[in-house]
Amino acid sequence: MKIEIFDTTLRDGAQGEGISFSLQDKLAVLQALDDLGVAWIEAGNPGSNPKDMEFFRIAQSRKLKTAKLCAFGSTRRKGMACKDDTILQGLLDAATEAVVIFGKSWDLHVTEVLKVSLEENLAMISETVAYLKDKGRTVIYDAEHFFDGWVANPEYALKTIQAAAEAGASRIVLCDTNGGSFPDRITGGVTAALAAVTPVGAGLKPAPTLGIHTHNDSGMATAGAITAVQAGCTHVQGTLIGFGERCGNTALAEVIPGLELKLKMQCLPEGNIKKLYQISRQIAEIANISLPDGMPYIGNNAFSHKAGMHADGILKVRQSFEHIDPALVGNDRQFLISEVGGRSIIAERAKKIDAGITKDSPVTANLANKLKSLEAEGWQFEGADASFELLVRRELGKYKALFTIETYQVTSEFPSPLSNDGKAARLSASAWVKVLVDGNYEIAAAEGDGPVNALDGALRRALIRFYPELEQIRLSDYKVRVIDGSEATASRVRVLIESTDGVNTWNTVGVSGDVIEASRLALVDSLEYKLIGDIERRFKAYL
Amino acid sequence: MKIEIFDTTLRDGAQGEGISFSLQDKLAVLQALDDLGVAWIEAGNPGSNPKDMEFFRIAQSRKLKTAKLCAFGSTRRKGMACKDDTILQGLLDAATEAVVIFGKSWDLHVTEVLKVSLEENLAMISETVAYLKDKGRTVIYDAEHFFDGWVANPEYALKTIQAAAEAGASRIVLCDTNGGSFPDRITGGVTAALAAVTPVGAGLKPAPTLGIHTHNDSGMATAGAITAVQAGCTHVQGTLIGFGERCGNTALAEVIPGLELKLKMQCLPEGNIKKLYQISRQIAEIANISLPDGMPYIGNNAFSHKAGMHADGILKVRQSFEHIDPALVGNDRQFLISEVGGRSIIAERAKKIDAGITKDSPVTANLANKLKSLEAEGWQFEGADASFELLVRRELGKYKALFTIETYQVTSEFPSPLSNDGKAARLSASAWVKVLVDGNYEIAAAEGDGPVNALDGALRRALIRFYPELEQIRLSDYKVRVIDGSEATASRVRVLIESTDGVNTWNTVGVSGDVIEASRLALVDSLEYKLIGDIERRFKAYL
Repeated sequence: MKIEIFDTTLRDGAQGEGISFSLQDKLAVLQALDDLGVAWIEAGNPGSNPKDMEFFRIAQSRKLKTAKLCAFGSTRRKGMACKDDTILQGLLDAATEAVVIFGKSWDLHVTEVLKVSLEENLAMISETVAYLKDKGRTVIYDAEHFFDGWVANPEYALKTIQAAAEAGASRIVLCDTNGGSFPDRITGGVTAALAAVTPVGAGLKPAPTLGIHTHNDSGMATAGAITAVQAGCTHVQGTLIGFGERCGNTALAEVIPGLELKLKMQCLPEGNIKKLYQISRQIAEIANISLPDGMPYIGNNAFSHKAGMHADGILKVRQSFEHIDPALVGNDRQFLISEVGGRSIIAERAKKIDAGITKDSPVTANLANKLKSLEAEGWQFEGADASFELLVRRELGKYKALFTIETYQVTSEFPSPLSNDGKAARLSASAWVKVLVDGNYEIAAAEGDGPVNALDGALRRALIRFYPELEQIRLSDYKVRVIDGSEATASRVRVLIESTDGVNTWNTVGVSGDVIEASRLALVDSLEYKLIGDIERRFKAYL
Repeated sequence: MKIEIFDTTLRDGAQGEGISFSLQDKLAVLQALDDLGVAWIEAGNPGSNPKDMEFFRIAQSRKLKTAKLCAFGSTRRKGMACKDDTILQGLLDAATEAVVIFGKSWDLHVTEVLKVSLEENLAMISETVAYLKDKGRTVIYDAEHFFDGWVANPEYALKTIQAAAEAGASRIVLCDTNGGSFPDRITGGVTAALAAVTPVGAGLKPAPTLGIHTHNDSGMATAGAITAVQAGCTHVQGTLIGFGERCGNTALAEVIPGLELKLKMQCLPEGNIKKLYQISRQIAEIANISLPDGMPYIGNNAFSHKAGMHADGILKVRQSFEHIDPALVGNDRQFLISEVGGRSIIAERAKKIDAGITKDSPVTANLANKLKSLEAEGWQFEGADASFELLVRRELGKYKALFTIETYQVTSEFPSPLSNDGKAARLSASAWVKVLVDGNYEIAAAEGDGPVNALDGALRRALIRFYPELEQIRLSDYKVRVIDGSEATASRVRVLIESTDGVNTWNTVGVSGDVIEASRLALVDSLEYKLIGDIERRFKAYL
């Protein structure tokens, strides 16, 4: 059986505390979710948010492999014709194949929050769905608070979804908006909804697809989604790693493996479930949120064993202490005391530098030890392939520094010494750097918008005399993460830099107690990685 | 109906990655759990761990109000009499009222891991239980891997728990050790177990209490525990905030409110559920782990609302967007300040400064506009209450700067000018700051581990002459987020600072293109917020 996966990281997920996506972030999330292979991506509310409209304009030109874009909005405003509702017009302007419309299924919300009659609410639902369908859209109807409504006034709750179904909604999504429903209520509600929207008699048009949308306020979002599928839903809404208001939305990264690996239902294109671990991290990285280590299936500790008896059991029979094989979702087993895990991954990645490296090569063991101690200091190479390659080169003796920074000094001043007109105290940072390249010194200075920017500018200026190709490099992303927040401003920081030369993109990392020193480490790795690649390409014959 | 709550934070919880309790920590956790009012506390494995034995010796003298202590161990070793098994003797030496014994219920584990015959395993279970009962102990039997065993070989799995019941175990606990079971399997397993251990016919001794012990590997630990109770279990094992191996044990802080508030079953002494928020934090603090903000019921964001429509709904009818009243578990509702949030949230929070402010006050509209433009520049006040209050004060004219930074200069140098021995090029940052307070200048300097740390040190030194109370302030957390990564090192950064004076904690924010300037803004807000609070408290009579 096939299950439709609907991701709303960019809409409902953005309601989560601390989640804020720039336009570039949104496009990157879109790409990552399409790589994973979800069926639908709900990306924003263009009718009420001009920033979202800008996103939809750009997103239209992106070619997606499997996913289809949805815009999100509500039923028409009370006492107004659909054609006069500017929010609905905004939804249409987003020009997506599908639109998602939410409406009220709980009588309390109709009379006390929306303050309209029960009849007017039904009209708002059916008129809005019919209007959008008439405009050529696939309409996905979100029945907000369906389960609470079904308990409070079952007859009315079912009428609201019947109204949407009769008006032509292709999917009816049952929402547990407040996240308070237990699995038994989910089963009851889905069963009743299924009966209500399934036409009786032969020759009638098919019933709409039923969907489920749960929240984690009772700690049961995943159980709710899976229970709903077992009761007949074939469309599951959530956010990949569980972002969302309050306690979050259903984490699709928990639901997809449950459905695919245990209930044998297909959610993603064949084989794509293996990307789950990696793509979840990509999205966490974009949002600058760290994925909980204990997260089911994809957490770094999801398959970590500390108890000796457990490790011993696993080495005898894998399934004795593992509910699934971690490789199925791209994750890996870890033994926290005896470092057995990880080597095959290290060897796999080190092969890029020397094809002869295997899991059992001595260099693999050395790298594993090196990684272990670096990780204990806060380094992470998951998102920094280029720095990892340099590490492998150093371990193999296939590395010689292409330049050395002899000295640098970075100064931030307030007010800026440049603005002596006594008016605007503009901010200023400046840096000077002295480098040594093949026996020759060069010194250069630069100003910048902040100390790291100034250091970056000065370093490039100093090096460009020796390596003119550095002119092409642009830093395309820069992230700072505090590793241990408890020591406040004296904490260690990890800096991740993404660089591009217009053709390729690579990532480097630096860790230090000082944000500038951490940035220097990542900058140097970035420049060296580029230079080594160029040398190999140009001088291969001599190497 | 009463449900027995059994906490294993000190035993199974200690298997979690990064969890390590000292003896003092264990005693503090014991006290906190007893304050909460759980029925049982499983505190360690005295037979195999001398540190645990030391704990039990001291714990014996502690007076507990409601909780009873349990020691944990396994069935006797294969081919050995109970009286000769030193681990069982260790268990008895712990001198607890109850002992927990785990045994194998999955035939795979019996033959492949333990490597004994199915018959010997049954003998190991019944002899161990009978032996300990004979020694006057209440015996709690943990049926390890019960659900996996029940699927693989149902007849044998049920025989193992019958053996324990017949030998006199007072509680039979069904364990989903690998965390792979879905709620439907839990229901099936509990129902079968209940039938298997319930004596048929009149006048027989009562059936043992059935318990449930789940893990979160499928993201359904809470659902599993609650489903098991609905199917007949009356004893629930877990760790208060979900510590445990891999993805963790069932979080009792999620299960207790579900059972008490929704299913109306009593888990804790009357009224104690209100302590849940506070005691969960106490235990997180002891373990030096931060509680996830999105944790159901007890997370800081569990009742936080960002969407304007949600806030608006709640202000009309509480339950429109809240599945329970947060005060029931000692938590609190929060409206996150953001441009999507709307005026009712802003007014609600601005009332702290001026009780007369409403949704329709002109100042609310001004604040909404101000927030909108600040958010467009990358500011976010969701996690920065103190900075928001200062913003409201400025808007109301209830603010006058308590100090001004006239000048600062921060320098990072490499190699450090302090290490002129030519060996270790230690990193160094230094800062000097000139402040103006009520017409008086002061200048101070400091070195630091990174430029922000140096600036923080210099600023405090300069101010402490005027405001000695600043001595008490400590920065307890420091976060940096790059707002739009696409401009790389010239991106804007947002700095969030958490400060504490030992009694209260507050959060401030700063945004700039320069990480140092952003940090300065957040630091200044933090110090001013503290000073204003002190002034109000001390000089209220004159204000």
